[in-house]
Amino acid sequence: MTNQPRITVWNEYRHERSDPEVAKIYPNGIHGAIAEHLRQQGLSVQTATLDEPEHGLIRDVLAQTDVLIWWGHMAHNEVADEIVDRVHQRILADGMGLIVLHSGHFSKIFKRLMGTSCDLKWREADEKERIWVVEPGHPIAAGLDEYFELPRAEMYGERFDIPAPDTLVFVSWFQGGEVFRSGCCFHRGRGKIFYFRPGHETYPIYYQTEVLRVITNAVHWAAPSGGPAVKFGNFPNPLEKL
Amino acid sequence: MTNQPRITVWNEYRHERSDPEVAKIYPNGIHGAIAEHLRQQGLSVQTATLDEPEHGLIRDVLAQTDVLIWWGHMAHNEVADEIVDRVHQRILADGMGLIVLHSGHFSKIFKRLMGTSCDLKWREADEKERIWVVEPGHPIAAGLDEYFELPRAEMYGERFDIPAPDTLVFVSWFQGGEVFRSGCCFHRGRGKIFYFRPGHETYPIYYQTEVLRVITNAVHWAAPSGGPAVKFGNFPNPLEKL
Amino acid sequence: MTNQPRITVWNEYRHERSDPEVAKIYPNGIHGAIAEHLRQQGLSVQTATLDEPEHGLIRDVLAQTDVLIWWGHMAHNEVADEIVDRVHQRILADGMGLIVLHSGHFSKIFKRLMGTSCDLKWREADEKERIWVVEPGHPIAAGLDEYFELPRAEMYGERFDIPAPDTLVFVSWFQGGEVFRSGCCFHRGRGKIFYFRPGHETYPIYYQTEVLRVITNAVHWAAPSGGPAVKFGNFPNPLEKL
Amino acid sequence: MTNQPRITVWNEYRHERSDPEVAKIYPNGIHGAIAEHLRQQGLSVQTATLDEPEHGLIRDVLAQTDVLIWWGHMAHNEVADEIVDRVHQRILADGMGLIVLHSGHFSKIFKRLMGTSCDLKWREADEKERIWVVEPGHPIAAGLDEYFELPRAEMYGERFDIPAPDTLVFVSWFQGGEVFRSGCCFHRGRGKIFYFRPGHETYPIYYQTEVLRVITNAVHWAAPSGGPAVKFGNFPNPLEKL
Repeated sequence: MTNQPRITVWNEYRHERSDPEVAKIYPNGIHGAIAEHLRQQGLSVQTATLDEPEHGLIRDVLAQTDVLIWWGHMAHNEVADEIVDRVHQRILADGMGLIVLHSGHFSKIFKRLMGTSCDLKWREADEKERIWVVEPGHPIAAGLDEYFELPRAEMYGERFDIPAPDTLVFVSWFQGGEVFRSGCCFHRGRGKIFYFRPGHETYPIYYQTEVLRVITNAVHWAAPSGGPAVKFGNFPNPLEKL
Repeated sequence: MTNQPRITVWNEYRHERSDPEVAKIYPNGIHGAIAEHLRQQGLSVQTATLDEPEHGLIRDVLAQTDVLIWWGHMAHNEVADEIVDRVHQRILADGMGLIVLHSGHFSKIFKRLMGTSCDLKWREADEKERIWVVEPGHPIAAGLDEYFELPRAEMYGERFDIPAPDTLVFVSWFQGGEVFRSGCCFHRGRGKIFYFRPGHETYPIYYQTEVLRVITNAVHWAAPSGGPAVKFGNFPNPLEKL
Repeated sequence: MTNQPRITVWNEYRHERSDPEVAKIYPNGIHGAIAEHLRQQGLSVQTATLDEPEHGLIRDVLAQTDVLIWWGHMAHNEVADEIVDRVHQRILADGMGLIVLHSGHFSKIFKRLMGTSCDLKWREADEKERIWVVEPGHPIAAGLDEYFELPRAEMYGERFDIPAPDTLVFVSWFQGGEVFRSGCCFHRGRGKIFYFRPGHETYPIYYQTEVLRVITNAVHWAAPSGGPAVKFGNFPNPLEKL
Repeated sequence: MTNQPRITVWNEYRHERSDPEVAKIYPNGIHGAIAEHLRQQGLSVQTATLDEPEHGLIRDVLAQTDVLIWWGHMAHNEVADEIVDRVHQRILADGMGLIVLHSGHFSKIFKRLMGTSCDLKWREADEKERIWVVEPGHPIAAGLDEYFELPRAEMYGERFDIPAPDTLVFVSWFQGGEVFRSGCCFHRGRGKIFYFRPGHETYPIYYQTEVLRVITNAVHWAAPSGGPAVKFGNFPNPLEKL
């Protein structure tokens, strides 16, 4: 159990380097913006990006990560399967938490963990999103009002092809007529996973108070909680006399 | 959000005063044993019992309670409906946590919250119970091994007539041939509820390390987490122009 | 298991007799409109209303009901507790299905089964509702498209104070800016319960094809499925030798 | 929606050809025993095995399969990834049902759908298993008593590393001291999946009445239910005017 979870913010980090519009919003990358906020909360944070060796997720880094935050969009397929396996294993066996942001719904690691297509409807039309709290007793909703708004957002709409979440915390309303399950908690193996919808690269969403508050809450919720290591395999000796 | 939850341990407190065998095991009552343990963890704890005015659950006490722990057995019907209403309201509206122990499955407050009969099979035969962790990533399993045992326990067996829990943390094996969902988490209103099976009055179960660890874990899990207060009723003005 | 479930449609039946506008839409009552549709599907249907003796729910009627459909709005408190107990028992012990429509969210029987306030936000503003299927593999979504619309509806908005449904089938989008979990499945005791949001008395919603299709689907889903009768209480003889 | 689901029983079909003990119990293969039972129920059944071209799961076969039953044990890795992809797609996109039996917990298709290791504890010690119904209102429990027993079974014990099932129908008690979630329902994509534990190849378990009843029930539950086909991707035109 970690009182102060150690975080790694992973970012594909391509849009910010190729698109001046994005670079203007996130001069230090999306990972930089999120990391800075979490550090201001007193948390221990490092970052990792796609184009580093092993995508920055070498074994030592993962071994010292309690919660991994994941943002990717245009280069999901460039993430090596071997690294995906490593992250997957670290979640299932060791209980590392994972927070998947926005377009990360299509990342290899999220699809691997969900077992479904993770596909959805989308639209870029600068429309309003209103995110409603439907489970107000959940710690990820701490400090929020009953809803918060993104004045301009990319639309993500149902059907979102995921397993029904263990807990559904947020549901989004979109101006254009869609709804979306935008805050979803999952237990997988010993790990906890939170999918959080907000965050298109062309909007300053990761500077918005409520969004940052949710990410901070999710870090605390997803951190390993110190439950038992699990043993598998052949147990030839029964616990009781047969 | 409370970093240090304030706890009230409620006990029917009849067996300990009428049955010398029980009194010998719990000289300060079951509530006393649990309260003492929680105080040793540095938590702020008060107790309340059935035969106090308003069962010890006057408005001021409840208003200062973040998590209520409930043990009852032979006198569930003596709990006044008005007090049940008050506790119910405090959970739903304010997010007070509730931990229901063992025979508390038949308490008015638990049946009210579940909406079902909460009935089960039982047997007093001094048999062994083995409690398996089935959701090792849940914070209520912190510090445990894969299972723990009660050397002598009253049997509770399925079908346990409750709604499927939001998270099932423990499943019990009984020597006599039954199984039981013995650690069950529920969100109700803004509150969090944990049902935990162990605890017959004729066994020193509330001195056992693992049982006390689970109760402590559950206190932290069930404490209010600071999500939004919820408004209900007529909202004649739409948020968007119609 | 019933191949052809026997249905009782229960209606408060007050609006239709006191409000000419409602009477014009539902000349035979809301129960009449729903019953007629179900009979056209070849189902065996009877009706019952509040002002009949025992609200029309005498023991013999319930004993021959596989699925009870419930519509109430202005007179929830006039339903006798004794009848609520009887319906509750019939669901939990015998597995009768229950379909709760629209303002029935505040009926005594639904609140009893849920254990929560079942409160919500509402507004009468003739706005559009779009109902999205979020679990397309569920039998209650059979025959639907990905969404359907009510051109004019009363708004119901989150937070809807219910336990998280066992399966969430529909989520509503409202023109005024809210969302709502509008198709919710619950197992309670041996019974299955479906809450379905559409249906204000001043709109001809119970003549709309998709709404009627959902009600028919829900009847088949909620009908008793022939699982084991459950025994409770003291089982002094262990199944295994201790 | 299919009133009479078309079934394909898939079997690895190796033990029966290499081990005379198994061959004696299942002279026509495990698939043969299950198929024969289902045919006696009037269902349309075909079989497919690992060593046929494309493992017997050519496109035409899958296209005419409403529910696929899967038994494998020693040769999971010989199942071609391409065929796994095909089955996966047929489940998610078209809603084909899948029933995974016993050691199929380690099949590629089940692990793909679950996203976890699907690992567990096991022991071969000829011990007794008692399977308890914990959700008696579920159609998969139709026709059963509160429990049934396998006089001699391989033990499977928790922790079973799967996502919490959408509905938990059965929990097993084992003589040697373990418990297991042995009947688990999942929605994935448009499809429904049922994992059912009983069935070691050295026991005549697939001739036992209750086991066959559960498989038949599961076929009806898992069959496609006719919900909407789902569209994904870019929807540039909002449903509402922005």
